[in-house]
Amino acid sequence: MVAFLRWAVLFVPLCHAVRLHHNLYCDAGEVDIRRPPQPSRFGSPWPLPQHMKLSTDTFQLSGGGFAIVDAEESSARSDCSILQDAYRRCYLHMFGSDVGKHARTTGSPVLTELQVWISSPDPECDGYPTVTSDESYELFVSLPNAVLKAATVWGALHGLETFSQLVREDESGIKCINETIIQDFPRFAYRGVLLDTSRHFLPVRSILTTLEAMAMNKFNVFHWHIVDDTSFPYMSRTFPELSRKGAYHPYTHVYTPGEVKLVIEFARLRGIRVLPEFDTPGHTQSWGKGQPDLLTPCYSGATPSGTYGPVNPILNSTYDFMTTFFKEISEVFPDAYIHLGGDEVDFTCWKSNPDIQKFMVKQGFGQDYSKLESYYIQRLLDIVSSLKKGYVIWQEVFDNGVKLKPDTIVHVWIGGGTNEELGNVTSAGYTTVLSAPWYLDYISYGQDWQKYYKVEPLNFNGTAQQKKLVVGGEACMWGEYVDGTNLTPRLWPRASAVAERLWSAVDVTDPDDAFDRLSAHRCRMVGRGIAAEPLFSSYCPKEFRGA
Amino acid sequence: MVAFLRWAVLFVPLCHAVRLHHNLYCDAGEVDIRRPPQPSRFGSPWPLPQHMKLSTDTFQLSGGGFAIVDAEESSARSDCSILQDAYRRCYLHMFGSDVGKHARTTGSPVLTELQVWISSPDPECDGYPTVTSDESYELFVSLPNAVLKAATVWGALHGLETFSQLVREDESGIKCINETIIQDFPRFAYRGVLLDTSRHFLPVRSILTTLEAMAMNKFNVFHWHIVDDTSFPYMSRTFPELSRKGAYHPYTHVYTPGEVKLVIEFARLRGIRVLPEFDTPGHTQSWGKGQPDLLTPCYSGATPSGTYGPVNPILNSTYDFMTTFFKEISEVFPDAYIHLGGDEVDFTCWKSNPDIQKFMVKQGFGQDYSKLESYYIQRLLDIVSSLKKGYVIWQEVFDNGVKLKPDTIVHVWIGGGTNEELGNVTSAGYTTVLSAPWYLDYISYGQDWQKYYKVEPLNFNGTAQQKKLVVGGEACMWGEYVDGTNLTPRLWPRASAVAERLWSAVDVTDPDDAFDRLSAHRCRMVGRGIAAEPLFSSYCPKEFRGA
Repeated sequence: MVAFLRWAVLFVPLCHAVRLHHNLYCDAGEVDIRRPPQPSRFGSPWPLPQHMKLSTDTFQLSGGGFAIVDAEESSARSDCSILQDAYRRCYLHMFGSDVGKHARTTGSPVLTELQVWISSPDPECDGYPTVTSDESYELFVSLPNAVLKAATVWGALHGLETFSQLVREDESGIKCINETIIQDFPRFAYRGVLLDTSRHFLPVRSILTTLEAMAMNKFNVFHWHIVDDTSFPYMSRTFPELSRKGAYHPYTHVYTPGEVKLVIEFARLRGIRVLPEFDTPGHTQSWGKGQPDLLTPCYSGATPSGTYGPVNPILNSTYDFMTTFFKEISEVFPDAYIHLGGDEVDFTCWKSNPDIQKFMVKQGFGQDYSKLESYYIQRLLDIVSSLKKGYVIWQEVFDNGVKLKPDTIVHVWIGGGTNEELGNVTSAGYTTVLSAPWYLDYISYGQDWQKYYKVEPLNFNGTAQQKKLVVGGEACMWGEYVDGTNLTPRLWPRASAVAERLWSAVDVTDPDDAFDRLSAHRCRMVGRGIAAEPLFSSYCPKEFRGA
Repeated sequence: MVAFLRWAVLFVPLCHAVRLHHNLYCDAGEVDIRRPPQPSRFGSPWPLPQHMKLSTDTFQLSGGGFAIVDAEESSARSDCSILQDAYRRCYLHMFGSDVGKHARTTGSPVLTELQVWISSPDPECDGYPTVTSDESYELFVSLPNAVLKAATVWGALHGLETFSQLVREDESGIKCINETIIQDFPRFAYRGVLLDTSRHFLPVRSILTTLEAMAMNKFNVFHWHIVDDTSFPYMSRTFPELSRKGAYHPYTHVYTPGEVKLVIEFARLRGIRVLPEFDTPGHTQSWGKGQPDLLTPCYSGATPSGTYGPVNPILNSTYDFMTTFFKEISEVFPDAYIHLGGDEVDFTCWKSNPDIQKFMVKQGFGQDYSKLESYYIQRLLDIVSSLKKGYVIWQEVFDNGVKLKPDTIVHVWIGGGTNEELGNVTSAGYTTVLSAPWYLDYISYGQDWQKYYKVEPLNFNGTAQQKKLVVGGEACMWGEYVDGTNLTPRLWPRASAVAERLWSAVDVTDPDDAFDRLSAHRCRMVGRGIAAEPLFSSYCPKEFRGA
């Protein structure tokens, strides 16, 4: 029998008295959940599916007697390696080392098969996910077999993850699953995580672990802030000096072309886009080490001071370099977009340089150096457009009035005035991605996941048409204080809160149910080898066994 | 040639302009160090030795041609396993996998031997460290061989750690060490780290990793807050029901007698005391599950509510239980002290209970329930005294006027009025340990290690005699938000700041030199497999290779 459940939207703001020894900060409106986690009536899917009908009837599953197979009607065949890979992953997530076990002969009926049915003529087995990919799926868990139906492999990947999350152990340690019907699709098409591999180098292994965890949370964009002032770990084929001189170390702290390819393919197999960011004209100190004359020489009075500022926007050689460099980038990274940065340009050095001053006069820019910045960005955008790539830029580029192609994505990150900015960007007709409330590198004591969870991205003044332009959001983990030692527990499960906000329905906001499901979800991640940190005093059946 | 260096005490408070995208909080008086770490003129010993003479002359060392041996004059012989174990550890820290390599025939002179000379007739090879152990050592790095001289093995352990920290790699990857003379001893005798294994269970492996890192930082007390309200993972031989019913899980989330013994021996081999805490009468919810009638039944009006409060102080059975229980504890844990807690007793339940009310009348306590608390504590202290153990108690026990033995240690933890409390405790003649400024479970964005580093424990009004009663301090890592997933990067290198404050001379306060040495020290810990998190944008020659 299938019972219909409605989403509970019970917001219970209770903030217990502060205790001295084990003080708990409780921000305005934040819920201080001090009870042990309870089983949620939804089980523990995270993020919560859009529509879910859950029966109390259960089926047994066993590693020795369960198969995930292509449905006969499916357009994907056995050579669709992205699916085959996902079947294997799903199976391992469900059964781990219990692969040889068989179901009991008594007890609940046995479910032996999950059939995966790709319904679109082109399953997109060899494609890359895009911002317009169809990620929806339907899941029918019933006898004689479970069916996962999706238009493309992208929806199927999410459905397999959900299926694996529905499987649990009963009191006797038997794997079981409830009779269930799910119709699911993301609320937002862009659900990103930013890693910064410049301020600290992240070993490829850390990046792959992050991609694994992202797939468990249905994130679909890895925004790779790959280079910055501090170091240039990207090994360029056309300009090898950039990493040779700009990386922390030319051999141990670089990403080789093979490793970049590995990251992209590992991400693709999990339905994740890799959006590379090469931020200019600021944040480029490390570029200057391997590319002479790229940066602006700063002056102290009438003489060069020996230090360098942003990219030099007045030399033709700069644009020749950018053309060649971004041609390489557009070939190495298959995604339709490149993130071009454009944030935080410091004008001090430009102002000090007499050649720049002359150029300003010649161009009629007066003393308005943001016009010079726009001049540079405009030319850069033209270059990237000619490479048939779309671009994402940080919000300052929009704020400064640079002319943008209509399909440009404006990335909103500044903490103050976020809603006003979203209104401005969308009323100008631009697509936008929101990161401002989700700077996860900022840490604080207590359950700050709730703060991230409570954000409503569309809570700004604007028409329905404007709101459609918010394609999603992104959790940012900047790298000043983060490297391979602490990345994973700092990112998870805090980023999971963002994941559910971006995937689930607008009214999925009950903090108590979220606490219960998220507690189970973080233990599930721990069980799968992800060092996701705890929400509050409690335990996991299988604790983390790393260092 | 040996050059004499004086400690630099340059405090350069510079707080750069806040940048938007990569905002850095800069507390009042905190130094915002945004430059890459530089080599310190002291090399990278951490904590900084009390006296250090460093020459520019260097010697080569090689894994294939270096030995650590007992000096002929030493009172310790080859059966002193604590030293043999430490020699091996020191060797591995210096040479890692380079054990087979040999020194170059050209270049600096080759150092082939470190002789370890224990000068006291009793080297204490089979003893346990105590608060009065002699931890001092002298180190002479010169030809024909280096000599480490210490009264006991406890000083030798620290000297070996320092020696291993003096060894570095030159530009060609050759291990080398400067000619050096060190006379070293701790400023404070008690240098502790608290782990909380109740709110989250910590796998034994996490505890051992912590002990390893503690030894690298010359900490000497592991304060094991082993049980609390949330869970009782200590497996008692006399009361097995306590963990069977009170642990998160009776098999997977307990410390067996064998594991406790392992932790104690692992700590001893590193010169670390294990101070167990069994906190009563509050913080005992988990005790009640396996020991009926131990806790006070709370009343709702005239009937028991079904919930329980602190330990029931009016029953003889309570004291019988405590006598038997602490007899076991006093035998299992060899340390001369037991931490008895005594913090945060909530009187609500006691007030509700009619039997307690009658007892209050009978004893003439009026409505002053702190008298009842003192009554309990007093009887508990008598029990523990009769077991020939000293005790440490949280400050409330002192604040409430409980009669204490003169050698009681009062543990100061309350954040407000700390200096006043230190004045009061020491003017009453009690020994004290300071934790209030070092609650490392409280996290915040940025370089908060500096806040811990800046603390001066003796900065309170009191006589020289009073200040001698401050035997040390302790970094606390409470477990509400900490388990095996995030313990190590959250504890290190933040606890290292506390370690230097407690070991080094009072005038070692230069934040820039500390930043440089601590950056190198954290990379050294990473190289030794400890996932110590970064201080700021930078890199380690060998990055962490864990998850």
